[in-house]
Amino acid sequence: MRLADIARLLDATVEGDPTLEIDDLQPLDEAGPRSLSFVSNQRYLALLKTTRAGAVILGPQAEGPGCAVLRVANPYMAFALALGLFDRPVDPPAGISPAAHVAATAHVGEGARIAPGVVIGEHVTIGARARLHPGVVIYPEATIGDDFLAHANAVVRERVRIGARVTLGPGVVLGGDGFGFLPLPGGGIFKLPQIGTVEVGDDVEIGANTTVDRATIGTTRLANGVKLDNLVMVAHGCRIGEETMLAGQSGLAGSTIIGKRVQFGGQVGAAGHLEIGDDVRVAAKSGIDNDVPPGRVIGGYPEMDIRLWRRIAAAVQKLPELLRRVRRLERALGTETPRAKAGEGD
Amino acid sequence: MRLADIARLLDATVEGDPTLEIDDLQPLDEAGPRSLSFVSNQRYLALLKTTRAGAVILGPQAEGPGCAVLRVANPYMAFALALGLFDRPVDPPAGISPAAHVAATAHVGEGARIAPGVVIGEHVTIGARARLHPGVVIYPEATIGDDFLAHANAVVRERVRIGARVTLGPGVVLGGDGFGFLPLPGGGIFKLPQIGTVEVGDDVEIGANTTVDRATIGTTRLANGVKLDNLVMVAHGCRIGEETMLAGQSGLAGSTIIGKRVQFGGQVGAAGHLEIGDDVRVAAKSGIDNDVPPGRVIGGYPEMDIRLWRRIAAAVQKLPELLRRVRRLERALGTETPRAKAGEGD
Amino acid sequence: MRLADIARLLDATVEGDPTLEIDDLQPLDEAGPRSLSFVSNQRYLALLKTTRAGAVILGPQAEGPGCAVLRVANPYMAFALALGLFDRPVDPPAGISPAAHVAATAHVGEGARIAPGVVIGEHVTIGARARLHPGVVIYPEATIGDDFLAHANAVVRERVRIGARVTLGPGVVLGGDGFGFLPLPGGGIFKLPQIGTVEVGDDVEIGANTTVDRATIGTTRLANGVKLDNLVMVAHGCRIGEETMLAGQSGLAGSTIIGKRVQFGGQVGAAGHLEIGDDVRVAAKSGIDNDVPPGRVIGGYPEMDIRLWRRIAAAVQKLPELLRRVRRLERALGTETPRAKAGEGD
Repeated sequence: MRLADIARLLDATVEGDPTLEIDDLQPLDEAGPRSLSFVSNQRYLALLKTTRAGAVILGPQAEGPGCAVLRVANPYMAFALALGLFDRPVDPPAGISPAAHVAATAHVGEGARIAPGVVIGEHVTIGARARLHPGVVIYPEATIGDDFLAHANAVVRERVRIGARVTLGPGVVLGGDGFGFLPLPGGGIFKLPQIGTVEVGDDVEIGANTTVDRATIGTTRLANGVKLDNLVMVAHGCRIGEETMLAGQSGLAGSTIIGKRVQFGGQVGAAGHLEIGDDVRVAAKSGIDNDVPPGRVIGGYPEMDIRLWRRIAAAVQKLPELLRRVRRLERALGTETPRAKAGEGD
Repeated sequence: MRLADIARLLDATVEGDPTLEIDDLQPLDEAGPRSLSFVSNQRYLALLKTTRAGAVILGPQAEGPGCAVLRVANPYMAFALALGLFDRPVDPPAGISPAAHVAATAHVGEGARIAPGVVIGEHVTIGARARLHPGVVIYPEATIGDDFLAHANAVVRERVRIGARVTLGPGVVLGGDGFGFLPLPGGGIFKLPQIGTVEVGDDVEIGANTTVDRATIGTTRLANGVKLDNLVMVAHGCRIGEETMLAGQSGLAGSTIIGKRVQFGGQVGAAGHLEIGDDVRVAAKSGIDNDVPPGRVIGGYPEMDIRLWRRIAAAVQKLPELLRRVRRLERALGTETPRAKAGEGD
Repeated sequence: MRLADIARLLDATVEGDPTLEIDDLQPLDEAGPRSLSFVSNQRYLALLKTTRAGAVILGPQAEGPGCAVLRVANPYMAFALALGLFDRPVDPPAGISPAAHVAATAHVGEGARIAPGVVIGEHVTIGARARLHPGVVIYPEATIGDDFLAHANAVVRERVRIGARVTLGPGVVLGGDGFGFLPLPGGGIFKLPQIGTVEVGDDVEIGANTTVDRATIGTTRLANGVKLDNLVMVAHGCRIGEETMLAGQSGLAGSTIIGKRVQFGGQVGAAGHLEIGDDVRVAAKSGIDNDVPPGRVIGGYPEMDIRLWRRIAAAVQKLPELLRRVRRLERALGTETPRAKAGEGD
């Protein structure tokens, strides 16, 4: 692809040879003379000086490295669009593989690509242009919209409802039983049948090996545009609002409700039966134990305002010294108590 | 189902029309005029006023919302029993699918339902009434009791022993290799062959994508009635006591022994080679670094008594202010040291 | 196997009957009269007195328990070697199962053992002696070296490159899409096509249900000898150095670079775009938010020197008492402020 053609698609100005042939899009330190590249993070700005890239995408002010430049107003957006130019997605072969198992009562829409080893249960409905990779299992009575993409070994349990343009990563599980057990007073544990389901909106994407449990009763809901990273856990009865994004290994306990456009860092946990408002942002590894009003930016466990949490994280490091300073004050004032002496080990 | 029939099965008194037809069991805010409903949490009590439910389950004292009421001594237990009335589990078709692969030397008991794509290895023994969903893989020489239920793509590695009435969620892995590696002084890493196994008792249930590793030598044990939530990690050589329940994304390092009826919140971690006594309860996200005597309720990292941990969580929020107060005291006393001045950044 | 034969292979001296027949290698408390055993941890030393083992491996100084002894210079290394003597790995049957699906354009090397239900895509190359258990899916254009072992339901996405002697646990996902989404100012979320790949070196082993995402552009790299435990998450564009080992449920955010011989405890998280030097060791549950120089031993969140972190963990427990002590000092000096009074709740 010629640089000039890329420039036209990205609404960019070419500085340098517009006839340069570009084969791929690579990071600065992996790029070659036929690569387009990009400064993905200010930390890597120094790599501009040493890159072997044929061309780089740069914003209005940035100084070029000597190679050709695609000058754009918004480099990150231009990069995002450029990715699409070099994307080579791999789909299962057209049609329904004879080695797939589709129940007679299932309905699969036109244009499907169903790989070997896929199993589709009784009374399942799937919309047009579905792409199901090997080992995907759709339990009976699930209903799924158009343009469904399910990667290898993803599982959709019975009666789960899925909207249009939904993507499941490999190993995703939608609709597993919620963790509902009732220890009995005389011993033994009663399993609460999990008779609810999961409903997934449009344009949802779910990462590898993430699990979303069905509700005990009613519905676990992922609204339109929700994005879940890998190894995320959504427990029974949760509701996640539009365009909310939860990063890797985050988890929600049962019945928690999350608003729209919320963003969790990785390894965040939220207790059950909480309400977390729209546009809340949560630092990685936080533990949320209380309702959170809309728009808050929080961190820590239990969660608190992110600025307070940062100050505390700094203050905590001075704690051993603070103990010594208080001890010194007590000596100066002669107020030491036997308990204080015994309690101070360092 | 008529409300009067449900009442008889739940040992409830009907207040209202006993001939009311009930189709399903729904949360207060999803219920319709032919739904039975239930106050699952005191947070949702206000929903009683607006619910469209045809009937609700209530305890002796609770005020009814205008619709019919099933009055019971223990509403949660009645709810748990009612779930079973509306449960419609989905099993694989009866028999062994011709698209399943069962080794000639394997023994599968009567009444099995084995789906397409299941693979059962040599010398496997499975009891009566097994239900194996698509993609389940049982490695050679595993032995499994009656009423085994394995959801899609669950994996049981070689020689694992499983009791009766065990349920594996989708994607569960039992008997994967323990993480046993020995870095050699001159470089290189020696893999310790993991020659032990996993033994799972009766009435155990394991959630989606949870992994339980085989022991290096000997046996990783899950006793009768153990319940593991999704994405839990049990390392090699752990032993988990009867009716212990570990919530989502919790993890145990190698050789840790957990007693009976222990309960972990989500995202708890326990170090290796620990002993955690019977009836211990652990707050979510705790990190257990020491043995824990029976009956303790703990939180934090390292773990401590839950009441101390709660007080500390509150006290930590006052830490930046505390630093200022100590500084003020030092000024008042004239005991400031250069080090104290340098150490205090805010 | 006679004890004398084992002794010769382990370079051990026999104390006791060299003709003793040994059937297996067991922990002290599971060993029988035909078992060899081993003190895996000093915590279990007392079990030596009660073990029923026929023989135990012991170091030069250790006192024997009455049964036969294999005396060695390095007991742990001898144990590691002994494991190999009793290992009985289970491989798929020789050859390519007629119930596997291998694309016509794929190349599978000699000596392969490909189980039923395996799917290998177009233009895949796999080296000699591959062992692929049921349900393994290799997407098109992946290239894999010799002696590949993939357990049931592991998934390798398109164009991933894998070296020699690599082992994937059950349910592993290599090359899933990175979590790359761009919320648009006017609403909606743009998915960044993930056009990069994953490259895995030689002698890498990855535990059950762990996920390694492909890079947005360029390559997510696991160098030679990397070992990942179960349920680990490696995000797009990370690079992990030689012989680094990450324990269970640890996670890396995007583009983080980790050096050689690094060791993470369980449930560690690292933020994105960091550099963590060679030989760094990280305590379980730590959260790494900054670059870490080589050789550091760290803990906490944000991470700090492990010794400081331990002192702080101890000091934190004295915080409620410290608040009282400062209050007492303020009273003695008459410097209480209304704010201090209001702020101190306990």
